[in-house]
Amino acid sequence: MITFGVLGAGRIGKVHGLTIAKSDKAKIAYVADADAKAAAALAASVGAKVSTVEAIIAAKDVDAILICTPTDTHADLIEAAAKAGKNILCEKPVSLSAERTLACLKVVEKAKVPLMIGFNRRHDPNFASLEKRLRAGEAGNIELVTIISRDPSPPPVSYIERSGGLFRDMMIHDFDMARFLVGEEFVTVHAFGSALVDPAIGKAGDVDTASVHMITASGKIAVITNSRRATYGYDQRMEVHGSKGMLRANNVHETTVEFASAQGFSGAVVQNFFLERYSAAYAREVDAFLEAIDKGTEPSANGHDGLMAQKLADAATQSAKTGQPVKVT
Amino acid sequence: MITFGVLGAGRIGKVHGLTIAKSDKAKIAYVADADAKAAAALAASVGAKVSTVEAIIAAKDVDAILICTPTDTHADLIEAAAKAGKNILCEKPVSLSAERTLACLKVVEKAKVPLMIGFNRRHDPNFASLEKRLRAGEAGNIELVTIISRDPSPPPVSYIERSGGLFRDMMIHDFDMARFLVGEEFVTVHAFGSALVDPAIGKAGDVDTASVHMITASGKIAVITNSRRATYGYDQRMEVHGSKGMLRANNVHETTVEFASAQGFSGAVVQNFFLERYSAAYAREVDAFLEAIDKGTEPSANGHDGLMAQKLADAATQSAKTGQPVKVT
Amino acid sequence: MITFGVLGAGRIGKVHGLTIAKSDKAKIAYVADADAKAAAALAASVGAKVSTVEAIIAAKDVDAILICTPTDTHADLIEAAAKAGKNILCEKPVSLSAERTLACLKVVEKAKVPLMIGFNRRHDPNFASLEKRLRAGEAGNIELVTIISRDPSPPPVSYIERSGGLFRDMMIHDFDMARFLVGEEFVTVHAFGSALVDPAIGKAGDVDTASVHMITASGKIAVITNSRRATYGYDQRMEVHGSKGMLRANNVHETTVEFASAQGFSGAVVQNFFLERYSAAYAREVDAFLEAIDKGTEPSANGHDGLMAQKLADAATQSAKTGQPVKVT
Amino acid sequence: MITFGVLGAGRIGKVHGLTIAKSDKAKIAYVADADAKAAAALAASVGAKVSTVEAIIAAKDVDAILICTPTDTHADLIEAAAKAGKNILCEKPVSLSAERTLACLKVVEKAKVPLMIGFNRRHDPNFASLEKRLRAGEAGNIELVTIISRDPSPPPVSYIERSGGLFRDMMIHDFDMARFLVGEEFVTVHAFGSALVDPAIGKAGDVDTASVHMITASGKIAVITNSRRATYGYDQRMEVHGSKGMLRANNVHETTVEFASAQGFSGAVVQNFFLERYSAAYAREVDAFLEAIDKGTEPSANGHDGLMAQKLADAATQSAKTGQPVKVT
Repeated sequence: MITFGVLGAGRIGKVHGLTIAKSDKAKIAYVADADAKAAAALAASVGAKVSTVEAIIAAKDVDAILICTPTDTHADLIEAAAKAGKNILCEKPVSLSAERTLACLKVVEKAKVPLMIGFNRRHDPNFASLEKRLRAGEAGNIELVTIISRDPSPPPVSYIERSGGLFRDMMIHDFDMARFLVGEEFVTVHAFGSALVDPAIGKAGDVDTASVHMITASGKIAVITNSRRATYGYDQRMEVHGSKGMLRANNVHETTVEFASAQGFSGAVVQNFFLERYSAAYAREVDAFLEAIDKGTEPSANGHDGLMAQKLADAATQSAKTGQPVKVT
Repeated sequence: MITFGVLGAGRIGKVHGLTIAKSDKAKIAYVADADAKAAAALAASVGAKVSTVEAIIAAKDVDAILICTPTDTHADLIEAAAKAGKNILCEKPVSLSAERTLACLKVVEKAKVPLMIGFNRRHDPNFASLEKRLRAGEAGNIELVTIISRDPSPPPVSYIERSGGLFRDMMIHDFDMARFLVGEEFVTVHAFGSALVDPAIGKAGDVDTASVHMITASGKIAVITNSRRATYGYDQRMEVHGSKGMLRANNVHETTVEFASAQGFSGAVVQNFFLERYSAAYAREVDAFLEAIDKGTEPSANGHDGLMAQKLADAATQSAKTGQPVKVT
Repeated sequence: MITFGVLGAGRIGKVHGLTIAKSDKAKIAYVADADAKAAAALAASVGAKVSTVEAIIAAKDVDAILICTPTDTHADLIEAAAKAGKNILCEKPVSLSAERTLACLKVVEKAKVPLMIGFNRRHDPNFASLEKRLRAGEAGNIELVTIISRDPSPPPVSYIERSGGLFRDMMIHDFDMARFLVGEEFVTVHAFGSALVDPAIGKAGDVDTASVHMITASGKIAVITNSRRATYGYDQRMEVHGSKGMLRANNVHETTVEFASAQGFSGAVVQNFFLERYSAAYAREVDAFLEAIDKGTEPSANGHDGLMAQKLADAATQSAKTGQPVKVT
Repeated sequence: MITFGVLGAGRIGKVHGLTIAKSDKAKIAYVADADAKAAAALAASVGAKVSTVEAIIAAKDVDAILICTPTDTHADLIEAAAKAGKNILCEKPVSLSAERTLACLKVVEKAKVPLMIGFNRRHDPNFASLEKRLRAGEAGNIELVTIISRDPSPPPVSYIERSGGLFRDMMIHDFDMARFLVGEEFVTVHAFGSALVDPAIGKAGDVDTASVHMITASGKIAVITNSRRATYGYDQRMEVHGSKGMLRANNVHETTVEFASAQGFSGAVVQNFFLERYSAAYAREVDAFLEAIDKGTEPSANGHDGLMAQKLADAATQSAKTGQPVKVT
């Protein structure tokens, strides 16, 4: 039985917290949140006590720290938890700066504690099945990956202003998936970005419509397109082309109901939004963390994965601004 | 907060029990089962006490009785619970005899308690959405319904021998759905049945492959096909043709992953088996029962629905044996 | 090079005529039609001469007779052509009476000439592929066949009055396909029919919505549903369930274009109507006839197939009227 | 009745020639080809005479010239035909050099004759329907276009060596479609290319796996991926995202047959290769040319479209070599 301390009782903190509480391999002892009411509510629903960040990290009866606080606190909390010898599951990203992330990972490495970064899509049953079949060689040698990711509608501009921009905030998931699927590092990135959905997003210095392609040293190519808007739901697709064929994961629709009339055949929109679409992924993510602790294996994604996805996001951000391709090291 | 007593801690008892335990509108106070170990396990996992059937039905702090015991006990337990003034949620069917069911329903009617029969498919999100759109008139006047239902593989012959036969054990769900979708009573039934999957099923006096068609007084037609085997999973489809078009519900597949190669395009099998395929339906069924209690509305399905589905199953059983069409009253 | 005489220059005569004219294995020498203008038009477009029925059947330079005249002339023309020793391709059905058909087939048998009945669906690339895979054993032992056939809209009541009724005019194609797919004879037929699409069809003594199920001596079951109306196009589907799995043929849609919006995903209606949907089937049908002549093999469908489909249609007609199952011999 | 002279009796010459011969608005008077046998064969099958290029262009009874000769002869033949005042339908591309194309177009412009470039995909019923719906505003303001184009297998290296490279030989169709769908000019292009399918292609100085993205002045983005190999057939897809939704055209499969078994659901490969996949497109292309002549409207695509697609192909070729984005003017 792994005992958790939960830092952050917001949306994702609740999702993970309830998964842990239902698990027969783990439980939550303490919850902390700047918002006392949120902390109390989550603590009550999972049978835990409210505490403080510092006390939780120091607590001897805590084996693992779940970090679901705002992004700018992640790196400090990871370091503190690592120094306290805790197992760590932290929401993506480690930080908005690759340098800060690198420094943080050194602390983790020194502490020799497992650190898992919450890239939920790796744990989606569809994408995980696709990746497993790729690794088993079903599609042969990988040549080209296409990832399409479109949110149903843009977040508030106030959110976008603090987000680090589309490439770091949204496309970072796709950078991670591209690495996860291809199994090689990308060395050159070129990006285009436009503010077509909402001019206010452009005024805030960000883009809402973007394409990135990137290439590995061996010539494998990944193409990612993102938009902050999809009228038909949360569009999440990927396809991998290899020497033996294509493996792809299609969208998940709200129902299987179809209507046929003189206007044609119509089916449901796709599941909207990520809490629904990735509910199984979130549950499997916690399971994977518990299994990594149990078996002493490297978590997926680990800190290095987090760092590399950030580097690709930084490169794409720079490329979209300068118009030039950017090398990634 | 509705307090439940649970009779029967087997497979379905557990499914419903966990749903009730997670609900913020209901809780379980007591569990009874002939198998003391099963009762204790379920009681522990839902925070309830083990008790006896008689004590639970008599308990003043119990508002609702969930009946998940073997079929041949349903009618007696419903009557006892009704006389005790409890709300009742009973797994299908009330009994294997329409006469016994009718007598039981009279007791329920006299007691003026709500009785809901667990026809889980009415609560499947896909089928419920289809039915809602039918009632809203999207497909116009209903003319023809087709229901396909195939289990992944046959149950043991020992189960089949006690089951009442395919029409009463398996197709009864489809009879209920046909009535639910069409919204009229069927007056004539004709059935064919064969033992093609396993000769042992034939020796046991049952069939494993069957077709039924039936017609309402106004001429609406329903066609149902069943098999005890589908190599590709649990096949559950229905389509309704009306004057304005067709509404259908397609299968639910295990993943959205597709593989394309020189052999063609291939996708996943369909979800297998009912606990997985209908997990959402089971949860929504309990919600519907709680809502019916709360609002004082008639449950779906109620005792009359249970009776009518049984009559159709009886008619089909007789038709398959005699080769003649059977009238239903 | 096979030289044809074409009897009947209507819709189907033109379709087949143009196929023959394009073939490098066949040509048309003569065309006859009661409507001189129609005969002249077809003759001009295929490089043939206008002639009379009698002269064409007697012509020494004619190897094959294509019969596309009204149904009530088929049997007489087949007999005349058979006596003249010609190869014969005749549109379905031989006649509306099984007795008349039987007499006609005896003449054909005595003349030892090949007779092919134009059941176009056997030659549809999708259905032909399905049947080929069935015969190769891909689905294992056949257990259950489902055929759905819905016309876009009813023909004029004046047509229906002369048609022999839905079972003989429309469902006859499905009876033939059921036999073709299952590869055994059906021994009992039960039918329901209603006039739900248009009351005028009911007044004319016919039905527009129908279901038939039927069973072979070994217990294989076929289920057929028909409607004279499908708002979404010409619905033509079939699925075959066997011990190893299911083979099915889905509809052919007008385009592959999809639109996704807040209202869901929508695709095109299905191809409408038979001249478009079965254009490849008609071309392949002529090829199959030419190949049967060339190789001296039995045409598919032959006269016996035509007779058996009619017997099933007669049985269904009788069953729908009497409500009783009908044996077929 | 438009009278054609056909230059080039190879694969495409035959396809177009047979379409023209079947049309009731056009006929072919003469055919020329360096290969006398090929010329004679096509002439025989379309009822034309064999002649020489010079004589055909000079012939007074010729209204239109169809140019299906090798690429390096296109520009000279267009100029000669234009000077002779003929309507011109020329296979893509005008030349492999944008400069030569530009010079050629000036001759055409001066001669005031219609010139249609054979970008067959514009005339595919699916893509044409998609474009029509885009122009009608169904998807709102266009934001992002994705085009996937994969050949079943690479052509011989000897062909590749003379082809101008993947971007000019294969992706040029996608450049044209991107312009056709978006309706704006792209101003910056970035390309990646790898030789992953066959190292011999890399040795020949070309790539077989490529991605291009490009952006218009207003910020609209197009992403194109190409491969010289798709084990599952000729992969031809496109999707357009706009403010109101997505319009996409899916692949065309060889049949609609599906097989379901314990291994999942499997369907047919996609149509393979372009003569089959685009047979309707080729027929519609000739119709469009005839209609443009008849109505005096601008053909789609015209010479300017041909030039712009070439410029994009040149830019992509340069970008893939240098790694730098290339501006297009």
